[in-house]
Amino acid sequence: MVMALKKKPVTGMKDMLPKEMEIRDYVIHLIKETYKAYGFSSMETPCVEHIENLCSKQGGDNEKLIFKILKRGEKLKIDEAKEEADLVDGGLRYDLTVPLARYYANHANELPSPFKAMQIGNVWRADRPQRGRFRQFMQCDIDILGEAGNLAEIELILATTAMLGKLNFKNFTVCINDRNILKAMAAYCGFKEEDYDEVFIVLDKMDKIGRDGVAAELIQMGYAKENVDTYLGLFDEVAPDVSGIRYLKEKLGDYLKSETADGMETIISSVEAAKEAEFGIRFDPTLVRGQSYYTGTIFEVTMDDFGGSVAGGGRYDKMIGKFTGQDTPACGFSIGFERIVMLLLENGYEVPGGRRKKAYLIEKKMPKEGMLKVLSLARADRENGYQTMIANMKKNKKFQKEQLEADGYTEIVDCYADSVDRL
Amino acid sequence: MVMALKKKPVTGMKDMLPKEMEIRDYVIHLIKETYKAYGFSSMETPCVEHIENLCSKQGGDNEKLIFKILKRGEKLKIDEAKEEADLVDGGLRYDLTVPLARYYANHANELPSPFKAMQIGNVWRADRPQRGRFRQFMQCDIDILGEAGNLAEIELILATTAMLGKLNFKNFTVCINDRNILKAMAAYCGFKEEDYDEVFIVLDKMDKIGRDGVAAELIQMGYAKENVDTYLGLFDEVAPDVSGIRYLKEKLGDYLKSETADGMETIISSVEAAKEAEFGIRFDPTLVRGQSYYTGTIFEVTMDDFGGSVAGGGRYDKMIGKFTGQDTPACGFSIGFERIVMLLLENGYEVPGGRRKKAYLIEKKMPKEGMLKVLSLARADRENGYQTMIANMKKNKKFQKEQLEADGYTEIVDCYADSVDRL
Repeated sequence: MVMALKKKPVTGMKDMLPKEMEIRDYVIHLIKETYKAYGFSSMETPCVEHIENLCSKQGGDNEKLIFKILKRGEKLKIDEAKEEADLVDGGLRYDLTVPLARYYANHANELPSPFKAMQIGNVWRADRPQRGRFRQFMQCDIDILGEAGNLAEIELILATTAMLGKLNFKNFTVCINDRNILKAMAAYCGFKEEDYDEVFIVLDKMDKIGRDGVAAELIQMGYAKENVDTYLGLFDEVAPDVSGIRYLKEKLGDYLKSETADGMETIISSVEAAKEAEFGIRFDPTLVRGQSYYTGTIFEVTMDDFGGSVAGGGRYDKMIGKFTGQDTPACGFSIGFERIVMLLLENGYEVPGGRRKKAYLIEKKMPKEGMLKVLSLARADRENGYQTMIANMKKNKKFQKEQLEADGYTEIVDCYADSVDRL
Repeated sequence: MVMALKKKPVTGMKDMLPKEMEIRDYVIHLIKETYKAYGFSSMETPCVEHIENLCSKQGGDNEKLIFKILKRGEKLKIDEAKEEADLVDGGLRYDLTVPLARYYANHANELPSPFKAMQIGNVWRADRPQRGRFRQFMQCDIDILGEAGNLAEIELILATTAMLGKLNFKNFTVCINDRNILKAMAAYCGFKEEDYDEVFIVLDKMDKIGRDGVAAELIQMGYAKENVDTYLGLFDEVAPDVSGIRYLKEKLGDYLKSETADGMETIISSVEAAKEAEFGIRFDPTLVRGQSYYTGTIFEVTMDDFGGSVAGGGRYDKMIGKFTGQDTPACGFSIGFERIVMLLLENGYEVPGGRRKKAYLIEKKMPKEGMLKVLSLARADRENGYQTMIANMKKNKKFQKEQLEADGYTEIVDCYADSVDRL
């Protein structure tokens, strides 16, 4: 029996219409060109990943959202299956970082060191469908593997912001922090190491519930008022720039390694000095970023036009070691491609440097010689940089022309059988 | 329990190394630019498609090769499941044509008519792994929907061959036939309509088992020797050009509609007159092409360097109607992207117009001022069109430089702490 066909895309995923695709194609090309100029090399992993790698506790909550792929052939034993794990051997990747770690573990010998990787690809998460969030979406990541120093952070931030600048985004802000500063501040204030993650989850709500909301929630959770007061007092005292870092370096004493503070200062001042685009970089001691795999610096890009971040990243020096047994320094920056495309669409962004568009409408009874004439004219136009379309003239030619004009065809040539020699 | 991590990609799929990605990125860009000049618009469907649409008997044998996706949440009832269909609700698309038909059915109001669509995307087939064939591979399709005339075939062939020409492919051949010519020849020779498919499967082996092989096999299958002799005699008499079509038009009489023969002649002579690239177009009455959905013209591109076709397509006027209830003329051409990339890699293809590459190697003890100097030099280089890489100098600088040179970095600048002002 043939089942009824469905016209809509699967739940939570999206058909891309030509207008959006034009912007997507342009942004992808711009990203590739910009990142290439910064020495990043394009690479790709399959969209399907081993289920073992996807469920290795490195993906946090994303592991609950995996689209899982059924085993095939004799390996699939439906009668004996007790749980999902018995039925599946693969899944669609939920990010590009876990597959990158596998890729690097598999190919390190064939890759330069440090390896500056650029990936643009779809990822899938079976999230509850909601406005503007889709179950298939594109991620664009750059990562530097094998570079322990701050040069990695500097180049990632310079490349990402240069790209945003080329899309005419201005006045955005790079916020930066370090997991080790987060920890040092918590330790200084008397929190225990096993409580850090819980404390940071509350701290992460600062922009939503405010300073007093964070204090109230921490006290309600049973943390000592004294510790909470010291903690929030500390945030009050720290300026969002290099002076704030210097202040913490002195104040926290042995709790904070001086190389952490100095590194952060180098990153901020280098980015400020060498940046291509117009933006600010701000030290933000309340920046947490959820992923548990971060081990050092963390950063994100916020934009006034948009609540929430449009790019995020950080250092994850322990992930590749899970594949190879040997830790490899790693740092990455991922832009929210879908958010950026959404902002461009909402702002009526026009793709620059588009071709001029010309259409030839051919009368139905056009003889072969006329057709050949039109084909050769169109060919010459293309050689001169035009985007050229040939179509049969419709009965409702007026409507046809309106459609073409709406689609950007500024020159439309009517080709009648009796006037070909005048074209 | 955390399962052991796997370094290799999943069976039959491939990690793309930077060298191959450079070619892939370039070819994709060239395809998009070329097809855009011919008036095709980029579009995309999700990689995941409704299982009902994938299993609708339009995909032929590909339907046996689907990667199926497990239902999620409460919809998944493992205990009650008796067969695969109870467990899955989606699958990875095995081609771009079935999703295009769904897309057009869903969005026809929002699309121009005719709609000239360009799609570049991955498809998945759980084929037996073999050399050079992968379970995830990229397809690049152009399709013209809503154009019943031969203009569709002409533009598809001109655009596809122009693109191959831009990749420096020469002396390839476009072979063209029409399902209606195939049928008319079989009917003329006395075969019954219900036997056509079986006869065509044997005919399709002509290039492998030869004329006599085809004859022997047909006779062995029980077809009348007289019919078989007439049939193969006919192929002997037909020249591979417009004269062959004219010959058949006369010979087959009422079995072949004159518009089919005339259309084929128009396509061949128009393509010959207007072609951009160097290639031949040949009428091939033995061309069959497997997919059952073709209703008219069928065509493919063969290349001397490569056994088998590098592109194929045809007219499928009945597919969209399966979604909408109303037939829409449709014609498409799909290039074998992976085969083309493989040929380019094997031929040592160099991507044209690459940037000059320059690397700065920074001594470990470089002070901040030196770092800023290098960053600003790199920035200036990028503005001048360089691809620029900054890396920390390694202990084995000689090896580091060799690696960079192998990677195309022709200028390498050593940056020592005590010589920054001389840079």
